[in-house]
Amino acid sequence: MSEQDNLNHLQTITESLEAGTTVQIRYLLNGALPAQDVARLLESSPPKERKLLWELIEAKNEGEVLQYLSEEIGVQFLKDMDTERLIAVSEHFESDDLADLLQHLPETIVKEVLASMTAQDRMRLEALLSYSEDSAGGLMNTDTITIRPNITLDIVLRYLRRHSKLPDMTDSLLVVSRSDRLLGILPLTRLLVSDVNLTVRDIMETDCTVIKADTPANEVAQIFEKMDLVSAPVVDGTTQKLLGRITIDDVVDVIRDEAEHSMLSMAGLDEDEDTFSPILKTTRRRAVWLGINLVTAFIASYVIGLFQDTLDQVVALAILMPIVASMGGIAGSQVLTLVIRGIALNQIGSANARWLLNRELIVGLINGLLWATVIAALTAVWFDNIKIAYIIAGAIIINLLFAATTGTLLPILLKKLGIDPALAGSVILTTVTDVVGFLSFLGLATIFLI
Amino acid sequence: MSEQDNLNHLQTITESLEAGTTVQIRYLLNGALPAQDVARLLESSPPKERKLLWELIEAKNEGEVLQYLSEEIGVQFLKDMDTERLIAVSEHFESDDLADLLQHLPETIVKEVLASMTAQDRMRLEALLSYSEDSAGGLMNTDTITIRPNITLDIVLRYLRRHSKLPDMTDSLLVVSRSDRLLGILPLTRLLVSDVNLTVRDIMETDCTVIKADTPANEVAQIFEKMDLVSAPVVDGTTQKLLGRITIDDVVDVIRDEAEHSMLSMAGLDEDEDTFSPILKTTRRRAVWLGINLVTAFIASYVIGLFQDTLDQVVALAILMPIVASMGGIAGSQVLTLVIRGIALNQIGSANARWLLNRELIVGLINGLLWATVIAALTAVWFDNIKIAYIIAGAIIINLLFAATTGTLLPILLKKLGIDPALAGSVILTTVTDVVGFLSFLGLATIFLI
Repeated sequence: MSEQDNLNHLQTITESLEAGTTVQIRYLLNGALPAQDVARLLESSPPKERKLLWELIEAKNEGEVLQYLSEEIGVQFLKDMDTERLIAVSEHFESDDLADLLQHLPETIVKEVLASMTAQDRMRLEALLSYSEDSAGGLMNTDTITIRPNITLDIVLRYLRRHSKLPDMTDSLLVVSRSDRLLGILPLTRLLVSDVNLTVRDIMETDCTVIKADTPANEVAQIFEKMDLVSAPVVDGTTQKLLGRITIDDVVDVIRDEAEHSMLSMAGLDEDEDTFSPILKTTRRRAVWLGINLVTAFIASYVIGLFQDTLDQVVALAILMPIVASMGGIAGSQVLTLVIRGIALNQIGSANARWLLNRELIVGLINGLLWATVIAALTAVWFDNIKIAYIIAGAIIINLLFAATTGTLLPILLKKLGIDPALAGSVILTTVTDVVGFLSFLGLATIFLI
Repeated sequence: MSEQDNLNHLQTITESLEAGTTVQIRYLLNGALPAQDVARLLESSPPKERKLLWELIEAKNEGEVLQYLSEEIGVQFLKDMDTERLIAVSEHFESDDLADLLQHLPETIVKEVLASMTAQDRMRLEALLSYSEDSAGGLMNTDTITIRPNITLDIVLRYLRRHSKLPDMTDSLLVVSRSDRLLGILPLTRLLVSDVNLTVRDIMETDCTVIKADTPANEVAQIFEKMDLVSAPVVDGTTQKLLGRITIDDVVDVIRDEAEHSMLSMAGLDEDEDTFSPILKTTRRRAVWLGINLVTAFIASYVIGLFQDTLDQVVALAILMPIVASMGGIAGSQVLTLVIRGIALNQIGSANARWLLNRELIVGLINGLLWATVIAALTAVWFDNIKIAYIIAGAIIINLLFAATTGTLLPILLKKLGIDPALAGSVILTTVTDVVGFLSFLGLATIFLI
């Protein structure tokens, strides 16, 4: 379906719900739309409708839809299920997705689900549950096809034909030793063009990309992007034993989350933030961020308060002072955004930080001079006062230079301190540009005007 | 290499350059590091060093490095090459990447490069050049392996074995009619598990995802994400003829660009923005954004100016007024960010916009009441004036409600008008929260205080 269709179906559903009929909705949810689209519809619905739609999905289709739902929403539905249903539904899942979901459910239920599985599946799943969700171990699947190095391709082809289906996104067979150590990979594209009398050892790739189970998810994503991989084997860091494989579809989710993380964090939002979260949950999250920013605002007000006498004498200063603070804030957050992205892409380190700071200072100076002139001219005309024009020009240049320095160095420093620059950066930057803006403008005014 | 290595190598290079020796750098760039890593090093270097490093790369390695460089940087190097070198280098490229690069080079050079190619390659490339870079046609490769439906799998396997290598990321063979119309796909994983005496027609998938050449790139990305694809065939929208195929590695770039787009646009930055752009280029781009925001700042100042007399009588108002504006700005940009992401993911339409606005108004009201109380208490203590405390509380609540309304409706409206909400949204929102903040606070003060 075209992507606009999601919104069209939503419209249909809303209208049906308002009219009080569910025939068409049932039809859409149970067969007319693929499970992926049903999941998108649920994600695009407010909580109450979402629950209603979920109840209209037939039990036999629930498992498939859940598979495509975002984790936060999926877990909510799973929590309401009885254990028997949960066990039935869990059979639809790939091992990595199931592990992710189980991590959010109560211990007792997890035990029951595990008890329902075959010994082999249970062992595999328990192994997955032992890794953090944000590591290669948490991203991997255990459904690999392994072969031994000393057999001929002819035997490999016959072995494959004994399967009724290969796991999704199988682009390589994994070559392992008798003790399950990874020896190399055999890409299907290579298998298909090679002489069937050769052995696996003759044509396997031994310099393939291998990922250790404790590699952080964002590093896994960068490796996939750089090497253009479809899948990669995961091994235990110490024993080199094969544990599973990571496929690009899971990595794509990591890439999207990672790229969105900076944008959402800068506004104090969570990347798991569900667009249609219920009111109380949303209010609580937002309140924290507003509270943090209130501290910033009061610091700025305190600085203004220091110049109460000056303001009392020249009211024009009160009118103009937000301009100085806001230009600094805009200039600073441009630099901050750029540097935060550079750090996320591992582009910025001490080797080039100095160059970057220099460039930003020069850019800040040129733009400072340019806009200081414009603002001074406008001020001189508006208030018919050349002295205030000079003062605001000076303050703008000072604030833009501080904005450039803070925007460049702050995220680098925060990163070194182990603090997420996207989350803390914008609050601190605003504090700096507000304080410096008011301080320089009102300070210069106190010196030269009063 | 681990991702930290990029920064370590950078450090080595900077130190070598400072010491004036290039032996170690040459060694790193020409063989010691894979081409992907050399490309990352160039991207992480300031312009002057970047040029120096490029000159140290041997001619025979240039083509491979260029392949991995970001487009903006690659084009700069290509522009400085003579045509003969350019032709030699162009042989390293996949057809889609080459088409993207050629679009940025002068017409005369493009003609010479085209003239150097075989008739078949030229025709393919000319076809690619006719599509926009941001469409499925611009993303696709022309290196497909096509088969006919009526042959047996045994013949398919023998046909494949005549190739020395299959194109990268080949996960399916494309089944076409005599007139090149796409009939279905044959996944390699299915080919490998099926009886070799069956025909292609017996086992091919006919309900596979097919992408039309004029589909926008962001829609292609959503289709890949939803359907968990590795590659998908591209056809002409009217004739249904097979044109090429899109592979996940190119889609991953689209997904990253798209997710970064919102963050960068909200700060007035370009998603092609190179972290190490030279000074003049950076200054020019930033200046435009500062200029636009200056208009906002002057509008806010104008509003303050309307209350000159009030400010003249009660200086405390000047000290407190930035708090009202800033709390509105923060609350508004949280909503704005969330809605912009929801729109980008096609989650928000008229069916759920009303629910969203209601939620945001309630969230704004609760947070408004909460923080208005806190701010009023602090104000009452600070200025020992209960009247100002009531006034600021009222202004905060009013501004937070306006912020919620603007944050929700503005991006939806901009989207309908065909304006990028990420780019224009934050400027307009700040104008609204500044104006409403100052107007409500100083307005209430004028009514109740003077």
